[in-house]
Amino acid sequence: MRKPYQPSINDIKLTTVLHSLSDPRRFQIVKSLQENKEQNCAVYHDLMPKSTLTHHLKVLREAGVAKVRIEGTQHFYSLRLEELEQLFPGLMPAILQVKSELIE
Amino acid sequence: MRKPYQPSINDIKLTTVLHSLSDPRRFQIVKSLQENKEQNCAVYHDLMPKSTLTHHLKVLREAGVAKVRIEGTQHFYSLRLEELEQLFPGLMPAILQVKSELIE
Repeated sequence: MRKPYQPSINDIKLTTVLHSLSDPRRFQIVKSLQENKEQNCAVYHDLMPKSTLTHHLKVLREAGVAKVRIEGTQHFYSLRLEELEQLFPGLMPAILQVKSELIE
Repeated sequence: MRKPYQPSINDIKLTTVLHSLSDPRRFQIVKSLQENKEQNCAVYHDLMPKSTLTHHLKVLREAGVAKVRIEGTQHFYSLRLEELEQLFPGLMPAILQVKSELIE
C-alpha cells in the first residue's frame, strides 16, 4: 500500500493548520489523539460515518497536524506536536487547553 | 445605520475563530490591524476588491476576532485581543508571532 501523503515540516503552513482545526469534528479527533497519543482510526467509526472520518483524517494529515503509521491493514494516527511546536511555538498548547464549552 | 452584528464575548467559539483566521487574505487584514490598532477599512481597498474586503471583514467580525466602530459613513476596525486572550489564553499571541513565510 502506498503511504498517504503527509507534508514535510518545511511544507506545513499556519493557515492550513488553522483550517484543519476549524471543524468541530476534526477538533474532536485531535482532542482524542492528544489524550491517547496514538490511535487506530477504527476507534472513531462509532463517532461518524467511515467516509466522513476518512475525509477528516486526510485533511488533518495533509495539513501536517496528524501523521499515520501503517501496520498491515491498520492505520494508526498521532499528532505531530513536536514539529508544530517547533514551527508555531505555543499554538497547539493554547488550542488544546480550550474548555470544551468554548469549542463550537 | 444599523450596527453590524458582532458576537458578545460569551458567543465567541474557538472553531469559528480558527476558521476566520485560516484564510490568507483575512490573516493579512488581522496582521495589519495588529500593527495599526484601529484601521479605517478604506485602507484595504488597494489590497483587494471592495466586495472581497467586505466579505472578509464580516467573517472576522462575526467570529469575534475584529470589531467595528462607525463614525458617520466610515467604519473603523480593530482586533478584540483582550477578550480573545481572556477566552483563549496565549492563542492570538502564538498566531500573530508566526513568521510570514510560514503563513501560507
